This record gives sequence, structure tokens and C-alpha cells, in this order.
Amino acid sequence: MFKPTTYDSYDFANRRHIGPSPAEMEAMLAVVGTPSLEALIDETVPKSIRQKRPLSWAPLTEHALLARLREVAAKNRVMTSLIGQGYYGTVTPPAIQRNILENPAWYTAYTPYQPEIAQGRLEALLNFQTMVADLTGLEVANASLLDEATAAAEAMAMAERSAKSKARGFFVDLNLHPQTIAVIETRAAPLGIEVIKGQPDDLVPEAVFGAIFQYPGTYGHVRDFTDLIEKLHDAKALAIVATDLLALCLLKEPGAMGADIAVGSAQRFGVPMGYGGPHAAFMAVRDALKRAMPGRIVGVSIDSHGDPAYRLSLQTREQHIRREKATSNVCTAQALLAVMAGFYAVFHGPAGLRAIAERVHFNAVRLRDALLAAGAEVAPGAFFDTITVKVGVGQAGILAAARHRGLNLRKVGRDRVGISVDELTDADVIARALDAFGITDPAPAEVELGFPEAMLRQSDYLTHPVFHMNRAESEMMRYMRRLSDRDLALDRAMIPLGSCTMKLNAAAEMMPLTWPEFGALHPFAPYNQAEGYHEAIADLTTKLCEITGYDAFSMQPNSGAQGEYAGLLTIAAYHRARGEGYRNICLIPVSAHGTNPASAQMAGMQVVVVKSAPNGDIDLEDFNEKAVAAGENLAACMITYPSTHGVFEETVRAVCEITHEHGGQVYIDGANMNALVGLVKPGEIGGDVSHLNLHKTFAIPHGGGGPGMGPIGVKEHLAPFLPGHPETGGEEGAVSAAPYGSASILLISWAYCLLMGGAGLTQATRVAILNANYIAARLKASYPILFMGNRGRVAHECILDTRGFAEVGVTVDDIAKRLVDNGFHAPTMSWPVAGTLMVEPTESETKAEIDRFITALEAIRAEIADVAEGRISAEDSPLRRAPHTVEDLVAEWDRPYSREQGCFPPGSFREDKYWPPVGRVDNVYGDRNLVCTCPPLEDYIAK
Amino acid sequence: MFKPTTYDSYDFANRRHIGPSPAEMEAMLAVVGTPSLEALIDETVPKSIRQKRPLSWAPLTEHALLARLREVAAKNRVMTSLIGQGYYGTVTPPAIQRNILENPAWYTAYTPYQPEIAQGRLEALLNFQTMVADLTGLEVANASLLDEATAAAEAMAMAERSAKSKARGFFVDLNLHPQTIAVIETRAAPLGIEVIKGQPDDLVPEAVFGAIFQYPGTYGHVRDFTDLIEKLHDAKALAIVATDLLALCLLKEPGAMGADIAVGSAQRFGVPMGYGGPHAAFMAVRDALKRAMPGRIVGVSIDSHGDPAYRLSLQTREQHIRREKATSNVCTAQALLAVMAGFYAVFHGPAGLRAIAERVHFNAVRLRDALLAAGAEVAPGAFFDTITVKVGVGQAGILAAARHRGLNLRKVGRDRVGISVDELTDADVIARALDAFGITDPAPAEVELGFPEAMLRQSDYLTHPVFHMNRAESEMMRYMRRLSDRDLALDRAMIPLGSCTMKLNAAAEMMPLTWPEFGALHPFAPYNQAEGYHEAIADLTTKLCEITGYDAFSMQPNSGAQGEYAGLLTIAAYHRARGEGYRNICLIPVSAHGTNPASAQMAGMQVVVVKSAPNGDIDLEDFNEKAVAAGENLAACMITYPSTHGVFEETVRAVCEITHEHGGQVYIDGANMNALVGLVKPGEIGGDVSHLNLHKTFAIPHGGGGPGMGPIGVKEHLAPFLPGHPETGGEEGAVSAAPYGSASILLISWAYCLLMGGAGLTQATRVAILNANYIAARLKASYPILFMGNRGRVAHECILDTRGFAEVGVTVDDIAKRLVDNGFHAPTMSWPVAGTLMVEPTESETKAEIDRFITALEAIRAEIADVAEGRISAEDSPLRRAPHTVEDLVAEWDRPYSREQGCFPPGSFREDKYWPPVGRVDNVYGDRNLVCTCPPLEDYIAK
Repeated sequence: MFKPTTYDSYDFANRRHIGPSPAEMEAMLAVVGTPSLEALIDETVPKSIRQKRPLSWAPLTEHALLARLREVAAKNRVMTSLIGQGYYGTVTPPAIQRNILENPAWYTAYTPYQPEIAQGRLEALLNFQTMVADLTGLEVANASLLDEATAAAEAMAMAERSAKSKARGFFVDLNLHPQTIAVIETRAAPLGIEVIKGQPDDLVPEAVFGAIFQYPGTYGHVRDFTDLIEKLHDAKALAIVATDLLALCLLKEPGAMGADIAVGSAQRFGVPMGYGGPHAAFMAVRDALKRAMPGRIVGVSIDSHGDPAYRLSLQTREQHIRREKATSNVCTAQALLAVMAGFYAVFHGPAGLRAIAERVHFNAVRLRDALLAAGAEVAPGAFFDTITVKVGVGQAGILAAARHRGLNLRKVGRDRVGISVDELTDADVIARALDAFGITDPAPAEVELGFPEAMLRQSDYLTHPVFHMNRAESEMMRYMRRLSDRDLALDRAMIPLGSCTMKLNAAAEMMPLTWPEFGALHPFAPYNQAEGYHEAIADLTTKLCEITGYDAFSMQPNSGAQGEYAGLLTIAAYHRARGEGYRNICLIPVSAHGTNPASAQMAGMQVVVVKSAPNGDIDLEDFNEKAVAAGENLAACMITYPSTHGVFEETVRAVCEITHEHGGQVYIDGANMNALVGLVKPGEIGGDVSHLNLHKTFAIPHGGGGPGMGPIGVKEHLAPFLPGHPETGGEEGAVSAAPYGSASILLISWAYCLLMGGAGLTQATRVAILNANYIAARLKASYPILFMGNRGRVAHECILDTRGFAEVGVTVDDIAKRLVDNGFHAPTMSWPVAGTLMVEPTESETKAEIDRFITALEAIRAEIADVAEGRISAEDSPLRRAPHTVEDLVAEWDRPYSREQGCFPPGSFREDKYWPPVGRVDNVYGDRNLVCTCPPLEDYIAK
Repeated sequence: MFKPTTYDSYDFANRRHIGPSPAEMEAMLAVVGTPSLEALIDETVPKSIRQKRPLSWAPLTEHALLARLREVAAKNRVMTSLIGQGYYGTVTPPAIQRNILENPAWYTAYTPYQPEIAQGRLEALLNFQTMVADLTGLEVANASLLDEATAAAEAMAMAERSAKSKARGFFVDLNLHPQTIAVIETRAAPLGIEVIKGQPDDLVPEAVFGAIFQYPGTYGHVRDFTDLIEKLHDAKALAIVATDLLALCLLKEPGAMGADIAVGSAQRFGVPMGYGGPHAAFMAVRDALKRAMPGRIVGVSIDSHGDPAYRLSLQTREQHIRREKATSNVCTAQALLAVMAGFYAVFHGPAGLRAIAERVHFNAVRLRDALLAAGAEVAPGAFFDTITVKVGVGQAGILAAARHRGLNLRKVGRDRVGISVDELTDADVIARALDAFGITDPAPAEVELGFPEAMLRQSDYLTHPVFHMNRAESEMMRYMRRLSDRDLALDRAMIPLGSCTMKLNAAAEMMPLTWPEFGALHPFAPYNQAEGYHEAIADLTTKLCEITGYDAFSMQPNSGAQGEYAGLLTIAAYHRARGEGYRNICLIPVSAHGTNPASAQMAGMQVVVVKSAPNGDIDLEDFNEKAVAAGENLAACMITYPSTHGVFEETVRAVCEITHEHGGQVYIDGANMNALVGLVKPGEIGGDVSHLNLHKTFAIPHGGGGPGMGPIGVKEHLAPFLPGHPETGGEEGAVSAAPYGSASILLISWAYCLLMGGAGLTQATRVAILNANYIAARLKASYPILFMGNRGRVAHECILDTRGFAEVGVTVDDIAKRLVDNGFHAPTMSWPVAGTLMVEPTESETKAEIDRFITALEAIRAEIADVAEGRISAEDSPLRRAPHTVEDLVAEWDRPYSREQGCFPPGSFREDKYWPPVGRVDNVYGDRNLVCTCPPLEDYIAK
């Protein structure tokens, strides 16, 4: 009898995704000292909380996955959407698509906290900031926010803390996009801010600490806000303008009107709509406000040679430092999309961008004129790209006629339709749009400007040489390659970042992202045009429910922190609905992620911090005391499981029970879900809500600092209180601009679940735990392991205690930078415990790569011993002089160790070594001398 | 009045594709000393030959192009093809698709003639060779050939020159694929080889110098050829086996049967069918025959540090050296596809490949058993993946029933259908296939092996560690990245290779290649399933006719050399049809590409070499004399225009007229078509046939040494004599396995034509000429420019005369390797004149990049002066010690120049420097110590 060997040729779940081979696992288990993987899990994960039934679904091969994705893609109908409302047709230059969006060198990179290995994307983000600052006419921009609506809400919160006015009102222009208004209202309520909505002229400056106007307005209006802004300033209030970068290529910029803050979306700069995202939102502010601005800001500093080097500035503002004092929980940005938008500007340059804006405007005016000529009532009088047409009871008919012609128009009120012209609008689209009104497109006539000449932009923009470089594709391709080569991402080495779960982002999972059936959908397109998306989202939801033990999910939150905030709002709404709206205390362990207290703060809760026991666990006694003290005011507790110390605490059920006893709800932070999937369901051990970091646990790449997705799962009783959205309904407020957040990247997580199958996901969890325990077992002789469970095991990450080296002058920074010489990204530094390194290998790393990392850390330990035992001073050691660059090699060598020792420490590649382009970057200098736009070319020439 | 600025946002033709900006062009024209681009063209291209009317079609934007391509893609109907016959369904692992096929670091690379900057792809190709050698059981394999049919023809020619038998017959197994037989017959005729077709047992060994069998046969037969091979050997004839790599994972290998040569296609190792190609064919031979093997062979040598380094071996065998003595004109290989197939083997390893083969075989047996059980007559008795079923007059009905179920079966003779099982065949496909016969798929039963146990493979294969590496995708992705980082391709720097036209391969042009609508089509699928392809090919043909002035095109030739051969066969057939079959003399200038005489040789023509005049032009007098001497035997002349010296010869019309006067036909080699498009039509100046190198002039990337496409255009009178094909008809013989050659990459050239428009193509030609003349103007003070036209202009390339430096000991090699330190690929070396460098910048390079190159060459000139003037010896100079590696930097530095001077010569990048992974490679050592499979790991460990 002949039987073929069982071999799934694309056994993604067991081999492609999971690093160690079966033989490697055997060797690792021997080192760990446990007979089998299952035994290790038994020693690690408390029996009491293990799920009873394995996850149910079977894996697909990569080939079957792609076939399934294509089948689903075919269910989306891509029409030309002229809906506008913050989302526009745009052309992604193919070279950007291929070389950035589809290139693992860009999409697998981590947030550029280690600037020496991130100079490429830092430069790309600086280009983005420069572009935003220039176009808005303000001095400083950040490196992106989640979406326009949350950026507007962030701006409101920023205005509240920065304005001198003591008023509690915040004025919201009714010309804002409806979803922006909704997100602002959601955000304002728990902060006790009174939202005053009206037309701009309704503004009473004295009643507000700030106002936000939209320019151009959601219905197209273009007006000059200079006078209103002056009045706001007279009342010591701040002015925020939500705006559109393309319009600003033609129109007077907010800075010229005196605006303090500008926000908006950079989507239409080459980023596909993707049924809602991801896209980069932006914020720019006057110089005086820069230190109050949320989000990451790339700045220019100097390196150890005194040469310019980029870095993230003002990091101490971030929530992981300021915790409950933080005023924003912004953590993820939209780095990858900001990079794309920045490159779009580099590709077109100022003349090109202006010409695109002119063409858009010209087409809008042509359309308006043709409608007017046919007797239609068209508004507004002054506009850039958007008009509305009064159609009375014919509204549904016109919308249907347009759809029949392949066009989606916008339903505005009960008797108008809106039309937004974009980069893709051509004569054919205009003809079809007019045809929907029964109008024959007249011959292109001479047109006049659609707004007063006084509104024309007077100032230059994008004057920096990078926006004037030769735009031949060869040159662009090489610029993108050069930048990516300066960086170290997952496509070259393990990134062992504790809590960040830098696992494989498989090629197959990334493919659907750039299919037009998924990319070209407007988030507010009619539901039946997005059946493919809905099928995918529904199936992903089913699987996430099974994984987590929850009953319902909201895909709206755009990041983990956003998920926390949305989850706490859900809890608050639940309490309110039960007449217990007074519950406002949130218990949070001292070891929590900094976003936890910041989110609780934003949700209007009062944070009470719970101590840790000496072993790192939650101090159960303290927890109980504080729960009792909170009593009927207890709203929630927020815990992370396994804990941020990387340990499966035995007490988790007790914590949940205590909380429930006092009427509180349990929020289990999903940050460490990678240690749970298939083994433990948070919804079964007492959790009422969790967010999942799809960009950690579910294979969405980090993109150099975003995008992310933080959907929340809830038990049935909380389901009615999940976020709503003006476009899709629901009782509760919206937390994101789009109903399904960054819908297009949900496909990555869905693909990951389909490829892995239930058993594969569970195996991934087991191997993630094995990998971490293997590292702990091998490194414990060199570095104390800070926290371990009862049976001496860590979960999926481990903390190396390096605090003891401080006394000999070796810092955690020295170790991190020395790892760059080995071609590694540093582990998470000084979190959750200052002076330590937290290592998370994930299941995707092979034994060989982990061994390379261990070799590197052991060699570093030996170098520390050299310092400790007086063979070399800390200052002169390769640790302090790290990272070593080619410039060091070429220059005179006056160090007490050899070039060889400096550049090729054990564990580094020889032939394929990564060379950092700069020496160690000076953080203090950068914060003191804040430069957040591209420095003039001369600075480089000098270099 | 408001009028938008005219700006085509994706003005590919004028800005994206063309390097110099308008301002840069102004500056360059000033240096060249001519008032305008048009004036330069007037000075360069003789008025007398310029075309009268500009090319007609308008350009598309990238966005419109992709929409058009999608529209055409939708016209292809992708069915499951079980046709077999050399083309099979396969899964391209997504990580290979994304990281190799869609990655410019791989696809824009040039042939690895400069090994120091090509170690990555050389390693990948060595993996391919090792895989082929192992699976066939022969000692040495080459780095790929064009397709299985031409590989078989090459094997025949090789057998003819290697066999000791003096017989003129060549036995061809009727179980070969029909297209293989056709190509062999085409090839045999002009060489005077008698093709004897029959069943293997019909073989009369004494009548032949060699025989080719197919194993498994095209209709599925598996048999052991050991006995026949023995008999052949007894008769001093050679045995060739056309085989299938997947079958060899299970079946006794040809080497074990005593075969001398094995050929076949590696398509089903992860390369999409693409309606015929491109795929990598392979050839493997016994050790004793290796020096007679055509094609490129990667070998292992040592570098200047004595470390192992890869290189191309035995290059002196190639036709550009041996010219009319060459026995093959093979020039292009299928490097990119060989790399993919090699990685497919690395991905699966021997156990995985065997398991895939077992599953394929299991499914084939299942299918056969079910058919037998239902009473069908099925052949053969022993098979691997293919069976045929006798269906009598029901043939058409069964084929239609299968199509109705989404399956293409093979029509075999008049009363059988063939079914080939492949990697994609699953239970559903089997059920549908059976359903087409009205059979209900029985429950999977126990099956027996479908061939005798004695035919099971006994030997191990793929034992080298690279095929046993951890196959986690992270590891694979990093391996691919590391290899590509070792190489220098167009995505990092200009590749100024004269005659090779390394222009931009735009991202948009590459995109359709990996769409399944184009990738998954079997070349012999019913015509109406490929309407998209036919529309694209027809439109490309129209445009190429307009560009060249020819009347018809054949897309069959798979490479430029293949095109030459096909063109000459067309000429020969034309003469024969006119009763002038005796015409057999081909005049070829001494300056011609080496492929020209080699192709003439293959077409059965006698080469008569024509001298050059001192200015490099064809010596018209000598040409005339030789034409007169040939008289009525003159078949053709082959010329290149502009000449291989990079000059527009004024005499071209005279050459054509003389040829025509004597009844000959004019073959104009299209190698330099990049200097003609839009300006001069070869069909108008006297050409009767030309091939076009679509991979040079029409933007198909070089892929590290292939794929290429060399379609031929002809005047109307030659059209009836273009290549035919057994699947599509035609009077003449086939030259390639597939009717449209490598059909899928025709899309790249089509996309290029559509993006550029006629005016854009013409501008590209002008700018290519400008760029070359700018280099000549700036470098002439440092290096004599060897040939120039009457008015002191070069065409699109220029030759730098470096022969004078030999006397001070500086070789052209020294200059080439020193350019590596500058991050440049060397220009074409020692061709068409020994000791010179031919530079072709193409239109895609910007002034900045060209200036960087000039800076580098000027600095090299200064270093030569240092040698010449005695300041440093040649041996100690940075020229001889180039390229400089990191190892040099780290090691003791005992050179008379500084590290800085060695590593950062003027023109090199500082931050973004490319470091070659090896020092200068020793060519002689490598040829003396030929190692053409992966060396054992210990060799590396030693290093």
C-alpha cells in the first residue's frame, strides 16, 4: 500500500510562523529542564484558569487563504466615491506602494525609540512633519495621530490645558465632519467639557476655552476665520482649525489666520481609503504650544561625533512616563502611513501638489457651473472641492441615479446631496455625475475661482530641498532604499521587545492590503458595496470571541490605548444605565502600562493605584483594601494578564472576584494576550472587557510606529454599551472617525487566524512561552531574572535585572546600544522596572536567532565584568562607545580595545553586518534644541 | 479666469522615467555644447534616416495604466489546468513572491559578471545548481537555460560535439513533449542532423550520436532507460533524459540510469505558469562533460583574502568570446526564475519535496483507480503524475464537460484525454475531474504505487545544510534579505553597462506580473481563456510595428540571441521558398555582438567577417567586396545600428542596399534600439528583420541574468516564414517551448509603451543620447573616447579607452573593481574593444547620479596618474587593492594610502555606502578548481 507522507506543504501554523523546529524545541526544553512543551505550560499557566476546549477551526494553507481572500474581495464593489467627508480618492504612486507599503524593511520596523537604528524612518517622518508644518503654516507638527476625529479631540484636550481662559465650554463648528463632532463629544463628556455646537458666527468667545472650525467645511464652505480667531485670542481662548492638506496647497493657511492648532487627515496624500483606514492624521501647533502637543515628535539632535542625527523628541511627555498625570493616552501613531504621505509630497513637490489642488478645484467649479447653468441650487458660494445640491424629495432618486452610474454621492440632510471632487476625478466622472442629474456635460468652459481671491494662499511651502529633489523614479526608489537600509527591522533580526510582541508579519497576510477591492472603498459607501469587508469582519469577530471568551466586539478603536479608553467608556455607560453613574474609581496596579491610568483619566475615572507584592504580583491585600475603600464608587479595575512583569499571577481570579463583589467591572488589558491565546480566555477568568492589540498578538506589523488596531471584546451585559457611530448608529458615542477603525488591516489579523487555525494559534502561545523560558534559563547565570512564577517560570517575556551594573557605571543604555553592534534592537528598556531590560522573543524566532541574541548578551556581560573588575573604565569601554560606526573604523583608532572587538562582538554577523549610520544620539541636546522640521541642506553639507 | 496648471500628476513619460530634470538637461546641453536637445539629435542621428512621423499614441498615467491592465486581466479566465505537457500548477510561496519576484533588489540586478557585487544571487544560483545536480543525480548543473525545449535542443548540439560516435542521426523519443520535439527539429535541420523519431525501443544506437528520452513521458510513461543508455554508450553515443524535478523526488534519477545529460523545466518549483513563461529550464551533465555544457555556471573560487567567493565559471566558453566558433548562442539565462525555484527547494527541503511528490502521485493513482473501477481504459501502466484515458469519439464531449467544471484536460490524439496531477490538485479537483466522466468520486481507497518499486529512488538528495535550514518564514525572509543586501542592483545605483541598457524598471510595470489572472494561465489553455493576453499581445505588436517600421512580429523568441536565430531561420526559409535555398553566406562586421556569428552558425549559415574602418564604422569597401564574392550565395548581413561602437554610421543605407542588390536580406540587431525608438525605424532604413531586446529597450528588468524576451519583427515578405508552433500552427518550426515565449513579461513592455506614449518613448531616446554625450563631453579630458560620429557625437553609449594605462600596470579590471568602492557596477569591460570600458547611462539616470559616476572616474584617473607618475606602485595602489571590504578596514592596515582614501573615494556615498562582502575574486583559481555545487558547510566554518 502506498500512502503519501503527511506534509502540509505550507504548514504555516506549525513551521512557517513558529520559529523553533521540532528538533530545536527538544533542545530548548532540555535547557529549560522540562520534559515537554505541555509540561512547561503546566508549570507556567495555572491549571485553574486554563480553558477547557481547544480552539475550533482548522488552518488554511497560504494558497487556500489567498483564494479565500480573493473570494471575499470580489464581494466588495468598488465604485467611485465622491462622498468626501474626510476620505478622498487618491493615487498611491506604485513606487511607494511597492517599496514602502509592501516592503518588510518598512512595515516590520518598530517605533523609532532607538534612534541609532531608525535614522531612515525618522528622516521620512521628519519629512512628514515638515510638510504638515509648511502646509498648515504653523511651526511644529507631530509625526501623526490616529485619525482626524481623534486628532480633533486631542486638540480640544490640549486647548483645555493650554488656554488661559477658565471657561469650560468648547465651541464646535457644525461644519465639522459629523464623525469628528461625535468623537469630540465622546471625549468631552468625561472631562466635564461643555460642547457648544453652532455655525462659526454663533461663537461666544468668552464662553469657551477653545473653538474648532473646519476649513474647508464638511459641506464645502471656505471662509476666513481670522476675525473669529482674533476674538478667541482676546478671550484667552485657543483656535483650532480642522483642515485639508490638499486645499492648503491653494488656500490661505490656518497659520496665516492666526490659528493655534491645526488638525486633519493626510489620507488623500497617496494613502488608500481602505474602508476607513489606516491613515495618518496630523497636528500642527504654534511654537509656543509645542511642548503641550500630544503624539510623537521627531526632532534633530547630534550624535557622539557631533553630527546631526534624528530622534524622537520630548519623550518624557508620553503617557508611559507621566501615567495618570498624562492628558492623552496616545501611544500608537500612524507611522507607516505618515511615511507614505510624506513621500507623496516628496514625489510631487510643491508645484505638483499645487497643480493637483488646482485641478481638483477646477473640476469642482466646472461641476458647480454646469449644475448652476441647468438651474440647480448649489451651495456654498465659496468652496474648494465640495459642493452640495438641493434636490428636495428627489434625494433618494439622485443618489440611486448616481450609483447606477458607478458613483457614490453624499446624502446631506433630507434634501441635499454632496459631491466632493478628488485627485481621481476626470471628465468622465464629471459627465457621469451630471448625467445623474439629467444634465448633459457642457463643453469645458472658462471658469472663475470658486472662492474669493483674498483666500488664495500667499506663502511658499515645501521649500526644503527634499521636496525639490529630482523626481525620477530611479532616484525616488533609491532614496527609499537608502532610508530603509539605515534601519534595522524584523526582516534582518529579532526585535526582542518586551510587551511589544514583534512576531512575524507573514507575506501572505499582507497581500490583500494592496488589492484595490479592499483599498478603494470609502468608509461611508453603501453597506451593500462592502459585503466582502463585512464577511471578513464578522468571521474575525467570531474567532476573536472564541479566543477571548467574550460575546461581542467593537472594531472601532484604532490602537490599544484607544481600546482601553473605549472599554472604560463602555463600563461607565453600563454603570450609568444601571443608575450607578457615580461609580468612578478605577483600581490600577502600579505595574500597569502607562496607558492604563491615562485612559482611565480620559474616561473620567479616578485612578487608585494598587501596590505590588515583593514577587511582582498584585498585592492582593492592598487591592482588597482599596476596593473596600472605593465601595460603591468602584467602577472598574484594570489589570494586565499575564502581568506586565511577565508572570502568570495565581491571584487573577481573586482580583476579579473582589472587583465584582464591589460592583466593579474588570478590564483585562490584552497587551499580553500572546501568552493566552488558546490557553486562557480572559472572558472566562473574570474579565468583562478587554482590548486586543491586533498589531501585537494578531500579526499586524508595527509599521515603524503604527498603524495599530485595538478592538474591544465584552461580555454580553456590556454589549449594548459598545461605541456607536453617526454613520452606523448605536446609542453610545464614537471613539474613531470610521465605524470599523482601520478596517483594511483587520484583514491581516483575519488572515493570521485563518492561516494558523485554532491549534496553530495555541501552539504559537506555547512556543512564545518556551522561547521566553529558554532565554531566562540560559541568561539567568549572567543576568538576574527579575520576576518568576511560583514554579520558577516566566510567561512569554522575561525581565533581565541590570540595575546592579549602575554602580560600576554601566547603564541599561550602554547595553542597549552595544546590542546595536550585534545587529539587534534593544529589548524594552526600564519598563516596567527602571534600569531593567524586558525581553520578549515571540514564537516566531528560531533557536538560532535566539542563541545569537544570548551570545551577544553573554558577551556584553563579560564586557561589564571587564569594567567591574577594573580592566577597562566604563567611559573607555566598548559598551559606552557603542554603537560603533564605519566612521569610527575609518577614523584614527585610539581606544583601548581593537577595531575587531568594537565592531564584531560575539553574536554579530560578519558578512551581513548591520552598520548604524550614526553614533550614539544625544537626547538631552535634542530636547534642549528642539528642531522638528527638516534642517536646511547646509547643515548636511557642513557635515 | 482660473485655469489649472498643466501637470500630469504621474507624468511618467517626462519625469518619472526620464532621469534628468528640465533644468538638469539645460546644464548638460551647455556642457555638451549644443543649444537644444533637438539640435543634439540633429548632430547625432543622420537626417537621412530619421523617421518622418512621430509615434502616434498618447501616454497613460500610472493609475490609468493599472486600470487598463486590470480590465485586460479580467478577460483572462483562470481555470484549473490539468494539461501538463511541461506546465503545472504550483504554489509560489508568498514570501518568495514578495521578497524576490516583487523586490527590485532582486529583479533589477544585472548578470553576475562582476562577482564582488553579486555574491547574493550567485549563492542563490548555486543553490539552484546544487538542487538540479542532486535531483538528476548528475555531477554538474548550469544556472538555467531558456525553456525545456531549447534546453533539449542545446543538449542535442552538445551531444553532437561531445559524442565519439560519428553518426549523424539523433534519436528523439516520441514521448517527448510535442513542443520539445518541434524545437529539436528546428534546431537539427540547419546543423545537418537527422532526427529519428520513435518509441524508445525503436532506437538503433549505431545510427545516432545521441538520443533523448522523456522521463516521465509526456503521456505519463515511467520506464527505466538503463538498458538503452548502456547500448548507446556501447555505440559511443550519448544519452539525454528530459525529466521532471518533482518526479525525481520519488523516482530513480537519470544519473542512476547512466544518463549523460538531463534537461527539463523547474517551473513547477514555485514559478507561475504565466501563459508560457518565463521559467528556468535546467541542464545537468556528467562531470566529464562539464566543460562542454552551454549556459552560465556558477562556481566557487577564492577572493583576495583567500576566503571562498562565488563567481561565474568557464566564461571563456561563452559566445561573446568564441564568436563564430561558439556552438550555442545562449546568452540570457532565467536567473530570477532559477533563484525562485532554488528558494522553493530551500523552503521545502528534501522531505517536503518528497512529500509533495508523494501527494501528487497518490492523487494520480487515486484518479486512475477510480477511472479503472468505472471501466475506463487508462494508460500507462507505470506513471508518476500523468495518465491518459481512452474516450473515443467522446473526446470533445469529455473536454467540454471538464471545462464546464472549471478544468482543462489535454486532448491527446483523436481518442484520448490526458490528465496531469499537480501540487494544487486536491480532492475537489479529483472529484470534478471524475464527474466530467460521469463518475462519482469513490471514498479514498488504499492505493498501490503507480510504478514498479524498482523505480523508487534509492539515493539521498539535497543533503547540503542550506536545504535543511530552519524554514520559519522569519528565517527565510532574512536569508533572502541578506543575500540581496550583498548585491548591488539598480535600486541602489546606476549600472552603466554599455549595450545592456539598464534603465528603470518601473514599479507600475511590474505589478501585473504577480496577478493570478496572468500568472495562473497554462500556455496551452483554450484560446478563449486567454483573451486578455491576446489583447495585450496584439496591442504590443501594433506598437512595436509602428516603432520599428516592420509589418509583423513573432513573440516566440525567449531572448535576444534566440531572436537572432529565429530571424535568420526566417530569412533562410524565405530563400528556400523562392528556390534559393543555396544562399548561405552571412556577412557580419568584426564589431558585432558575439551572439551574431553564433546565431548564424546555428542557422546553418557560413559567417564572413567584414572589417571595420579606422573610425570604427563598417569598412564599406570590404563589405562590398565580400558581398560581391558571396554573390548569389549571399543569404544575409547582420548589422547593429547604431553600431556596437556606439556610433550612428552614415553608411547604414549603403550597407542595406548592397545586401539587397545581391539578393540578401538585412538583419538589423535590435540591441541598440534604445538609440532609435521614435527617431529611426530599422524597417525603413533597409532592415528586413530585427529582434528587439525587450529586456533592454522595453523595460523588462534583467533579473540578475534573465528573463529576457527577443521577439522579431519582419517586413511583410518575411511574415509567412515566422516561427510556427505545434499548438498554434504555422508552416515553420518552433524556436521556443511556448507559442508566445515568456508571455507574462510581455506585459511589462506593453505597460512601458502605454505609460510612455509615443512622444515619451521618443524623448527617452533623445535623453539616452544626451546622457551619453554628456558623459563623453565631461570625461574626454580624462579618458580618450574611442569612437565618435562625424560631428563628434556618440550615440547612446560611449567607449572609454583605457588601453594606454596598461603600460603602467593599471588594467581595465582595476578600474572596474575600484568603481565598486564607489558603489558602482563597472561599465561593460573589454567589449567591443579589448581593454576599454563602454558606458551606457540610459535615459533613466539623473544628472546627479551621472555626475557621481563622473566624479568617481575622474578620481580613478587621478589615482592612475599617481601610478604613472611613480607616486605609488600599481601593486600597492588602491586600484589594485580594490574593492575594499570591511575586513580590510578591521584588519591591520599596512597600505601606503589611508583607510579613508581606500574606502571613501570621491563619488562614494558616506552614510549609505555599499560594502562588497568579498575582496577581488580570483578567476583563474576558480576555473582550475571547478566547484559548481554548494560547498560543504565546513568550508564556511573554517572561514
